[in-house]
Amino acid sequence: MKRLDRIHSSADVKALSADVLPELCQELREEVLATVSRNGGHLASSLGAVELTVALHRVYDSSRDRLVFDVGHQCYAHKLLTGRRDRFDSLRQLGGLAGFPRPNESPDDAAIGGHASTSVSVALGMARARTLLGEDYGVVAIIGDGALTGGVAYEGLCDCGNSKENILVLLNDNAMSISENVGGMSRLLAKVRVRSDYLRFKRFYRRTVGRYQILYRMLHWLKERVKDLFLPDNMFEDMGFYYLGPVDGHDVKGLERVITYARSIGGPVLLHVCTQKGKGYAPAEQDPAHYHGVGPFDLDRGVETGQKESFSSVFGAALCELAEQDNRIAAVTAAMTDGTGLDDFARRFKERFFDVGIAEGHATAMCAGLAQQGMRPVFAVYSSFLQRAYDMLIHDVALSGVHVVLGVDRAGLVGADGETHQGAFDVGYLCSVPGMRLWAPSSYAELRAMLRLALEAPGPAAVRYPRGGEGAYKGDSSALDTLLLRRGGDLTLVSYGILINEALAAAETLAGEGIESDVLKLNRLDAPDLEPVCASVSRTGRLLVLEDSARVGGMGTRILAELARHSVPLLAQRLLDLGDGVVPHGEVAQLRAMLGLDAAGVVRAAGELVRG
Amino acid sequence: MKRLDRIHSSADVKALSADVLPELCQELREEVLATVSRNGGHLASSLGAVELTVALHRVYDSSRDRLVFDVGHQCYAHKLLTGRRDRFDSLRQLGGLAGFPRPNESPDDAAIGGHASTSVSVALGMARARTLLGEDYGVVAIIGDGALTGGVAYEGLCDCGNSKENILVLLNDNAMSISENVGGMSRLLAKVRVRSDYLRFKRFYRRTVGRYQILYRMLHWLKERVKDLFLPDNMFEDMGFYYLGPVDGHDVKGLERVITYARSIGGPVLLHVCTQKGKGYAPAEQDPAHYHGVGPFDLDRGVETGQKESFSSVFGAALCELAEQDNRIAAVTAAMTDGTGLDDFARRFKERFFDVGIAEGHATAMCAGLAQQGMRPVFAVYSSFLQRAYDMLIHDVALSGVHVVLGVDRAGLVGADGETHQGAFDVGYLCSVPGMRLWAPSSYAELRAMLRLALEAPGPAAVRYPRGGEGAYKGDSSALDTLLLRRGGDLTLVSYGILINEALAAAETLAGEGIESDVLKLNRLDAPDLEPVCASVSRTGRLLVLEDSARVGGMGTRILAELARHSVPLLAQRLLDLGDGVVPHGEVAQLRAMLGLDAAGVVRAAGELVRG
Repeated sequence: MKRLDRIHSSADVKALSADVLPELCQELREEVLATVSRNGGHLASSLGAVELTVALHRVYDSSRDRLVFDVGHQCYAHKLLTGRRDRFDSLRQLGGLAGFPRPNESPDDAAIGGHASTSVSVALGMARARTLLGEDYGVVAIIGDGALTGGVAYEGLCDCGNSKENILVLLNDNAMSISENVGGMSRLLAKVRVRSDYLRFKRFYRRTVGRYQILYRMLHWLKERVKDLFLPDNMFEDMGFYYLGPVDGHDVKGLERVITYARSIGGPVLLHVCTQKGKGYAPAEQDPAHYHGVGPFDLDRGVETGQKESFSSVFGAALCELAEQDNRIAAVTAAMTDGTGLDDFARRFKERFFDVGIAEGHATAMCAGLAQQGMRPVFAVYSSFLQRAYDMLIHDVALSGVHVVLGVDRAGLVGADGETHQGAFDVGYLCSVPGMRLWAPSSYAELRAMLRLALEAPGPAAVRYPRGGEGAYKGDSSALDTLLLRRGGDLTLVSYGILINEALAAAETLAGEGIESDVLKLNRLDAPDLEPVCASVSRTGRLLVLEDSARVGGMGTRILAELARHSVPLLAQRLLDLGDGVVPHGEVAQLRAMLGLDAAGVVRAAGELVRG
Repeated sequence: MKRLDRIHSSADVKALSADVLPELCQELREEVLATVSRNGGHLASSLGAVELTVALHRVYDSSRDRLVFDVGHQCYAHKLLTGRRDRFDSLRQLGGLAGFPRPNESPDDAAIGGHASTSVSVALGMARARTLLGEDYGVVAIIGDGALTGGVAYEGLCDCGNSKENILVLLNDNAMSISENVGGMSRLLAKVRVRSDYLRFKRFYRRTVGRYQILYRMLHWLKERVKDLFLPDNMFEDMGFYYLGPVDGHDVKGLERVITYARSIGGPVLLHVCTQKGKGYAPAEQDPAHYHGVGPFDLDRGVETGQKESFSSVFGAALCELAEQDNRIAAVTAAMTDGTGLDDFARRFKERFFDVGIAEGHATAMCAGLAQQGMRPVFAVYSSFLQRAYDMLIHDVALSGVHVVLGVDRAGLVGADGETHQGAFDVGYLCSVPGMRLWAPSSYAELRAMLRLALEAPGPAAVRYPRGGEGAYKGDSSALDTLLLRRGGDLTLVSYGILINEALAAAETLAGEGIESDVLKLNRLDAPDLEPVCASVSRTGRLLVLEDSARVGGMGTRILAELARHSVPLLAQRLLDLGDGVVPHGEVAQLRAMLGLDAAGVVRAAGELVRG
C-alpha cells in the first residue's frame, strides 16, 4: 500500500510522521512521471516543486488557506494531494483534470493559473479581503523565477511589500524560465543566491533574537542605522518584504520548518526556495527545457528529440530563410524560443535574436523601437499571451504606424492546455488595432507566403496560425484576399485558417447528400474582401461561417453586417465558432467535435440550414 | 529679445554660453506657464523637467539622437527648443501641437509617449537597431518615477541592463507620481536617495580614477570582490546598469556635466536625477498633484479648487454612498485618485481604498483576488489605460467568473489629450471578455443606477462613461436594456452614452425638416437587446448608428449583423463612429463636428439616407 493511498487533503499530509515525507515525495514523483509520460504535460517544473508542495500542505490547509500557484505547471503534486488522485490519469484530457489550477475543479485550487506573473497580485487581493472581512486564513503565492520576469509580478510585489498584509510569497527559483532565464532579474537572483552565508546568519539571528521582542527591537533600531553601510540588502527587502532564504527546495523537513517560521512572522514575507527543474528524473534534470512541456513519451527512453513539422517549425524555417536575405530582420520571443520554432534562428542569427523573458508588453514596445529605427522585427508569440500586449500594440506600434510583424502562434484551439491557452480572441483584438493587417494561412505554403507579405506590408502586420500541422489543404492562395475554393448553389460556406479543411471535407460529404456548397476561404481578416461572399450568398441565400475564434470580434458578425450593408437577402444563416471563447482542455479533434466545428458538425448544421 | 528667439534646434542650444542657460530655463518656464494657463495642459511635470531637457539638448542632438520621453507630460520644453515655439500657443488645440511627443509632428520626437512605462523598451529597441545596422547615435529614455511603477518599465529595465547597448536611462525622480507615489518602488527610490553621500563619493571616484583606464580596471576588479560585503548596491546596479546619481535636477550646468560623462561610459547607464514638480511656480511647487493636469487658469490666482460636477465626480459620490451601506465594497485606482473622482472615497474609506500606482494589470488581478474572497472591488480606470489589463480581464477575472466591477472613465472622446487617450476601443475589448456585462449610462442618474446594477451582477461587470458632464438628457432608463426615446417612421437612429444628446437634438432638427426618426438608446452593450432596433428598422428601412467607439468592435457592426440574422430588409444605412479609433487632440465638440458625430453631422447623414 502506498502512502498516497491515504492522502486526500492537507489534513492527511499533516497527519503523517515527518520521517515518511521523503517517501511520500518519491511516490508523488512516480505518479507524476507515470501520468505525464502517458498524457503529456508539464513535467520538469512539476517534478521540481514536489517537496515545496508537500511542505506547504504540512503548514497550510488548502481547503481554507489560499495557495495561489503562478502558472500551474507546478500544481500536479498539489492535485494529487487534494482528493484528485483517482482522476489524475485524466489529466489534460477532455472532461478530466485540467493541467492548471482551476477553482471550478476543486475548492483547493485558489485561483486560475495558466498565464504567468499574476499570482502575487491575486494573492494580495485575497489577503486584503481576508483582513477587511475580519477573517483568518493564510495566503501564499507560489511563483517561479521565470514568472518573475513578467512586469505584473513586479507590480504585485511592489504593492505587496508595502501592504502590511500577512502573506507569503514563495519564490520557486530553479534558475531558469521556460527557455533559459534572461535579463536583469536572473542577475538579481544570482546575486542573492551567492549571499546565502550572510542570509543564513541573518535568519539565525532573527530566529533567536526574535524571541525577545524588546531586545530585538533595540538591536533592529541599531542595525537599521548601520546596515546600509555594511550589509547588503536585496530588492525584496527594499520593497518591504521580510526576506528568508535561499533554502534547499528538496529538503522537505527543512522546508516545513522555514515555512512554519515564515507563517509566524506577520506581514509580507518572501521565502526564496532553490529547486531543480526535473528533480528525480535524470533526463529531465539534464535537459529541463526539453522536459518543460512534453507529449506522451517512453519513461525509459525519454522524450525523443527532433521536432515534428508543424506551423511553428515552418514559421521558424521560413523566417531563417528570409533573414538570410535581409539582415534587417530580427526575431523576438517572450521565453518561447522552442515553442515558436525559433531555436534554429536563435543559433544562426544570435545577434538578431532577442529572448526578453515572459514580457510580452516589453517585447512589443521593444519591437516598435527596432522598427522605428530601420529594423524589421518579427515577434513570435502565442495568441493568448499576446493579449498582454494589447495596449502596446495600439499605443507603441499602431499610433506611429511602425512596421512590426507578429507571428501569432497557437491561434484557435490549442488542445490539452485548455481554457487559459486557447487562442480565441486574437482575431477580435488584432483587427481592432488601427492599421493592423492580419493574414490567416491554411497551409505551410501559405504561412511562408503570408509571412513574406507581412514583412512587405507598410505598417503593423500579423500572421495567425494554429498549433500543430497542416491538413489536406496544401495550396497557396496568398495572392488573393478571398478565394472561392468550391462552387455549388445551395449554400455559402465561409472559413479561414486550419478549419478550411473541415469546410472542404464537409462540402464533399454534403455533395454526396445532394447539397452543393460554395466554399470561400478568407486570407485577410483585418479588411476582408467580402464581395465574393456577398455574391455567393446572393445566389445561395444561405450562409454558414466556420471559425476558431470567439463570436464577439469574430468574422461571422462582420460578414453578416456586410450582407446587411449590401441588402443581400438571407434565407438562413449559422455561425459556428468558439462562442464566448472559453473552451476546456481536450484533444483538438475532440474539442472541434464537441463544438460542432469539425466536418461532421458542419454537415449537420448545413443540413439544417438547407432543409430548414 | 529673448534667448529663446534664437533657439530652433539642439544645435542652437549647444551654441549658447553655459552661463546663460539658467536664463534660458527661466524663459522656458515663462512660456510654458503662459501657454498652459491659457490652454490647459500638464504643468507640474513640465516645469520640473526644464533643466534636464536643456542639459539633454546640450549633449545630444534630438534630430538624430533619439530622446524617448516616457509619458510626454515632460516634453513641453523639448518642443519649445526644437522649432515649435511659434506654434506653441496651439498646444493641445485642434490642428495644433500635441501635448505628447509625436513623431508625425516632428523628427525631433523619437516616439509616441502618452501611456506610461514603455520608454525604456522603445529606446532599447532603437539602440539595438542602431547597433545591428552599424549606425552611431545616442539613445536616451527619460522616465519619471511614477512611470517606474508600471511593470513594463521593469521588464524593459531588466532587458536593458543586461543588453550591453550604449543607452542612457534618465530617471526623472520627483518623488511623486500623478497621485502620491505608492508601493515598493517609492521605498526603493527613497532608500537610494539617502545614500547620496556614498554615491557622490562613487561618482567622484569614477570621474577621477576613470581617466586612467588601467588603474581603473585594477581597482574595479578589486572593488567588485569586496564591494558586496561593504558597500550597498541598488536594484539598478544589480540589473546591470552603471548607476549615476542622484544629482540635482535643477542645476543645469551640473546636469550637462554628468550627462556628458554618462554618454562617455558605454553600456547601459542609469542617471538618477532629482527634480521638483512644479519648479518655478510657487502654487505648483506647493501642491503639485493639483497642478498635474490643469484646465486654463489665472496665473496670479492659481488653479481654483473644488471639482466641477462630472461623470467622474458623480461616480465617486455614488460609490461612497454604496460603500456606506456595504462594507464589502472596495475601490481601486491606478494612480488616478483625483481623475476618477475617488478622492472623497480615499479619505472616507481609507481601509478599503487601494492606489496601486500605474499598474492596471496588477490592479485587475488584485481585484480578482479581492472578489474571489468575498469583497466587491470596483476598479476606476480610464478606458485607454485599461487596455493594459486586457489579458488579466480574461485570465484572472473572466475565466473564474469573479465579480469585479469596472468604472470605465474617459470612454469615447477625451479631447485635448488626443490620440493616446481617446477611449475608442473599450466597447470592443470589453464585450469580448467572456461573461462581461457592459452598461453605457447617458446621464448622472443612469450612472448611479447602472453602477448599482453592475454591483449586483453576478460576474465581471463594467460601466463606461465619458469625460466631462451630462447633456440635455437627464433621464434614468436603466431598467431597460434598450429603449425607444422618440418615435417616427422615416429613420431608425441608434445611439448610447453621451451621444444620445446629439441623436435627440438631430431628431428634433430633422422633424423640422419633415423627417421623423425613431431614436433608440442602448443601455446594455455586451448582450444588447436588439429586438426593438430590428422592429424599428422593419418599419423605417433606414438605420443610422451613432457611437463614440472604433468601427471594429463597435455596436454598428453588431446591429447590422442582427438585422441580417433576422432578414430585416434595409434600404439604407450609415455608421457614424470613430473609424479606426485614432482621433487627434482638440475640444470634444470640435472633434465631434470634425467626425460628423454631432447633431449637425447626424442631420446631414440622415438627410442623405432619407433623400437617397
